[in-house]
Amino acid sequence: MSGKKKFTIGIDFGTESARAVLVDVTNGKIAASSVYQYPHGVITEKLPDSDIQLEPGWALQHPTDYLNAIKRTVPRLVKESQIDPDQVIGIGIDFTGSTILPTLEDGTPLALLDDYKEDPHAWPKLWKHHAAQEKADQLTQLANERFETFLDRYGGKINAEWFFPKVWEMYEESSSVYNAADRIIEASDWIVWQLTGTETRNLCAAGYKALWSKSEGFPLETFFNAMDSGLTNVVEEKMKREIMPLGQQAGELTEEAAKWMKLKPGIPVATAILDAHAAVPAATVAEPGKMALILGTSFVHMVLSTKEYRVPGMCGMVEDGIIPGLIAYEAGQSGGGDHFSWFMKNAVPAEYEREARRRKISLFDLMEEKAAKLQPAESGLVALDWWNGNRSILTDGDLTGLILGYSLETKPEEIYRALLEATTFGTRKIFETFIASGVPINEIIVTGGEPTKNRLLLNILANVTRMEIKIADCPFTSALGSAIYAAVAAGESRGGYATVQEASQNMAHLSSKSFVPNNNDKKTYNRLYSEYTLLHDYFGYGHNNAMKRLKNLRTGILEKKRR
Amino acid sequence: MSGKKKFTIGIDFGTESARAVLVDVTNGKIAASSVYQYPHGVITEKLPDSDIQLEPGWALQHPTDYLNAIKRTVPRLVKESQIDPDQVIGIGIDFTGSTILPTLEDGTPLALLDDYKEDPHAWPKLWKHHAAQEKADQLTQLANERFETFLDRYGGKINAEWFFPKVWEMYEESSSVYNAADRIIEASDWIVWQLTGTETRNLCAAGYKALWSKSEGFPLETFFNAMDSGLTNVVEEKMKREIMPLGQQAGELTEEAAKWMKLKPGIPVATAILDAHAAVPAATVAEPGKMALILGTSFVHMVLSTKEYRVPGMCGMVEDGIIPGLIAYEAGQSGGGDHFSWFMKNAVPAEYEREARRRKISLFDLMEEKAAKLQPAESGLVALDWWNGNRSILTDGDLTGLILGYSLETKPEEIYRALLEATTFGTRKIFETFIASGVPINEIIVTGGEPTKNRLLLNILANVTRMEIKIADCPFTSALGSAIYAAVAAGESRGGYATVQEASQNMAHLSSKSFVPNNNDKKTYNRLYSEYTLLHDYFGYGHNNAMKRLKNLRTGILEKKRR
Repeated sequence: MSGKKKFTIGIDFGTESARAVLVDVTNGKIAASSVYQYPHGVITEKLPDSDIQLEPGWALQHPTDYLNAIKRTVPRLVKESQIDPDQVIGIGIDFTGSTILPTLEDGTPLALLDDYKEDPHAWPKLWKHHAAQEKADQLTQLANERFETFLDRYGGKINAEWFFPKVWEMYEESSSVYNAADRIIEASDWIVWQLTGTETRNLCAAGYKALWSKSEGFPLETFFNAMDSGLTNVVEEKMKREIMPLGQQAGELTEEAAKWMKLKPGIPVATAILDAHAAVPAATVAEPGKMALILGTSFVHMVLSTKEYRVPGMCGMVEDGIIPGLIAYEAGQSGGGDHFSWFMKNAVPAEYEREARRRKISLFDLMEEKAAKLQPAESGLVALDWWNGNRSILTDGDLTGLILGYSLETKPEEIYRALLEATTFGTRKIFETFIASGVPINEIIVTGGEPTKNRLLLNILANVTRMEIKIADCPFTSALGSAIYAAVAAGESRGGYATVQEASQNMAHLSSKSFVPNNNDKKTYNRLYSEYTLLHDYFGYGHNNAMKRLKNLRTGILEKKRR
Repeated sequence: MSGKKKFTIGIDFGTESARAVLVDVTNGKIAASSVYQYPHGVITEKLPDSDIQLEPGWALQHPTDYLNAIKRTVPRLVKESQIDPDQVIGIGIDFTGSTILPTLEDGTPLALLDDYKEDPHAWPKLWKHHAAQEKADQLTQLANERFETFLDRYGGKINAEWFFPKVWEMYEESSSVYNAADRIIEASDWIVWQLTGTETRNLCAAGYKALWSKSEGFPLETFFNAMDSGLTNVVEEKMKREIMPLGQQAGELTEEAAKWMKLKPGIPVATAILDAHAAVPAATVAEPGKMALILGTSFVHMVLSTKEYRVPGMCGMVEDGIIPGLIAYEAGQSGGGDHFSWFMKNAVPAEYEREARRRKISLFDLMEEKAAKLQPAESGLVALDWWNGNRSILTDGDLTGLILGYSLETKPEEIYRALLEATTFGTRKIFETFIASGVPINEIIVTGGEPTKNRLLLNILANVTRMEIKIADCPFTSALGSAIYAAVAAGESRGGYATVQEASQNMAHLSSKSFVPNNNDKKTYNRLYSEYTLLHDYFGYGHNNAMKRLKNLRTGILEKKRR
């Protein structure tokens, strides 16, 4: 085998599609890439091939879409790159999460069985299935009442998107599905199971989504019993206590799965990992002192540390959660790029649309051009970026957005810029909270989707955080990350790497372009940030709970209207 | 003359045009109406027939436009209505203010003399000439330092739009014009002078715009001396100490003016009055207990009272200021309908414009329709209506607007409705301040321009103030008001009236349509209003001066850019 280049395959299962990449293990170069849109997408209205309606807040997926993604993408990689299948030394999977499904003992999804296919709880519940909010609130309350130590690792709040709220929802609303489920499993681990014939549970999802930690394991049976006596043994009955570290070999590719992929059986398949977390080593962040900032509709912030610090308002703090041997902190802004999408859809006047059409540029480019001409503070506006609540550091989903400083001269591009600025103030708040809690950060590296193309946003981010903003040099960092973990699972003997750090150093790169703060803007933004902080603390720490009272009134009216 | 109907003519000099009406004295019916657009409009860029540029903030008018307005409109009234000129028993004038001009001893405007026509200070400075802001601030500071009692009557602040800031500006910046000016006079009084050959000064403009009061007269010479020793005798040198009450005969129509108008000489011409104030008796408000709410780009609130109360944040409190024998309070919201115009221009997306076009309705009607479908509090939004600062009750032009409660679901019609609601909260704040200060109000009567056609606004206003909202049944209340004062100046002997009250009772009417509050909405709006009040007090009373700090930063940047 020596002499020939070695490759790994990373497969990133996103919300609407999956992407597979074939990566040169030596230098991380993407040799081929292939995308598969899920035919069923996100299921929010009706179960497939049925008239069964879903309630508001539901979001399901089709397990067959996952397998078809593998069958369609991987063979194309090999074909297009014209490599020898022998050259593939490892396969890695990353997935959204917590996306969970109930299966039989052998891994067959209940959703594919005639007896259960008409029960919505039998289907994979996507991360953004929000119908279990009530269960999440009950879990938080229960954990608070019992002074459960795990709460501290999650900013004091259990999210409706996580594992146990979804399980509890299933248990309460469909005993037949719950009882028939021999296993309840993350879709990431389920895919690995389909490829290897071995059921594993990855540390990343367990740590960030299922309240597990290396030192304490899962919550105690007494906690599950307090939820409901029928759930006392949920871990033993439906899950696994053995949690597999990242960068390990979960198993080898089976004969059947090798056929799907047009690869050879026996190739090592790595432990699965969550998609955002896979992006971290792919963004060159594999050691303490760096913050990976993943820009999407929401923003995610990942920082590694050798020591355990208590940082307020985190989404999760997980030992070995991204890199074995390091504590991985995850923080988040629940609204990021979606502020800008909201603005483009709801607040740009027709006159601007006409100008963009006349000049044959996109509305986004027009707004960027106009907003970039403004100086910091020129608009007189400051905003709170809470259109979708606040995750870190306030962990309060009931907060709402605010814009202050309107005048009769206020222009749409000024509002747009105020929204860009507000999201970067939110990032600085998280950044400063890390620093103040003792976690050092000397570098910020951004990665993610559309917002990484938003040069004005990155420019403002540099001036607001007063840091050089570096950019990961790969448009598919999650998939590249999976390929990195695959190279570690393959190990040095097969031509891979011994550690995630080593793999990251060789396979992940930064763009030559970066954004550097300038002295004038930095100073002005310090002033604006202090205004942001005053408003953040006033509305965020309960000095004026107007946002919550108004949201309560609103929710009451909307519920009445629905009935 | 008996047997034949009697008429008066009211002429309303607005910002862009003048309107004359011929009114049946018996019942107030408008027999004819005629509008004249000023050819020179508002002069903000260059002096007429010259290359002389104006600074930002300047707003001038052409005196010839005023005279032409009379020559064009009045003859048309007589012609169209086919009345006998003998039937006209009085003429009344109302005007914007403080709109002032320097003239020679005989009333010739300096602007029309070759020696001065290239000096901007020689021209009539329109009410919204804002270049004297610095002088206004200095006057306020000086009055504060000297504990001048007049300050209390004006909410503690001297407005840049008033008489003396404009005079001081002229004195400092153009000694040649100031010295050449034998008289400096309100345009309202100047018009009456042109019609009668007699120079008078009306009580309304003197009281609301020139710091005069019945009990104290003008500020003392020591005050003017403190401004500048050259201004010590400004009243003696350029003005008149004798102030003429409203509803009196200022003089009789001269031969020349009668020719312009195609009327007979000798007709009584009433003392002039400011335009907003003229609208009050025309809106049936001629006694205590009623609030006239004049809805325009800004909102004006007029209340009459037999006793003198100290009401915080007024624009003016003037004895005999509208109705002889009564104290007239003027309050104001510096932003009213202009919030809605701002929204329509800057924040309605193209998709809505297309819908309006497709359905062949105006954008305004579309937004009204969509916003009317919402229930109070359904949007989760609350706003502060300070896009143009706050006049009453905070008297702070440096405050700016705010919207709180944004979510990713927020729709444009929700923002629009929040702006409508915010302006009515501002009105309720003023209304409650009157009540709390001891001034009774049992009725609200609206009049004004476009906003009186905004049914949703009036509906919300009823529910927010918890009062029936009545509507003046005349689209030109200022002009009708002038005709009412003309009927009083004519007096009973000529077929007019003895008092303004009596004239108002006969000549002013309410529309049969009114807006009545409903219990549910009232209660919800009480809750929203308490949120408004919390924010109003927090930002308005200096607990957080973010708005001012941001405005200062903004102003600094804009000034730098201009240089």
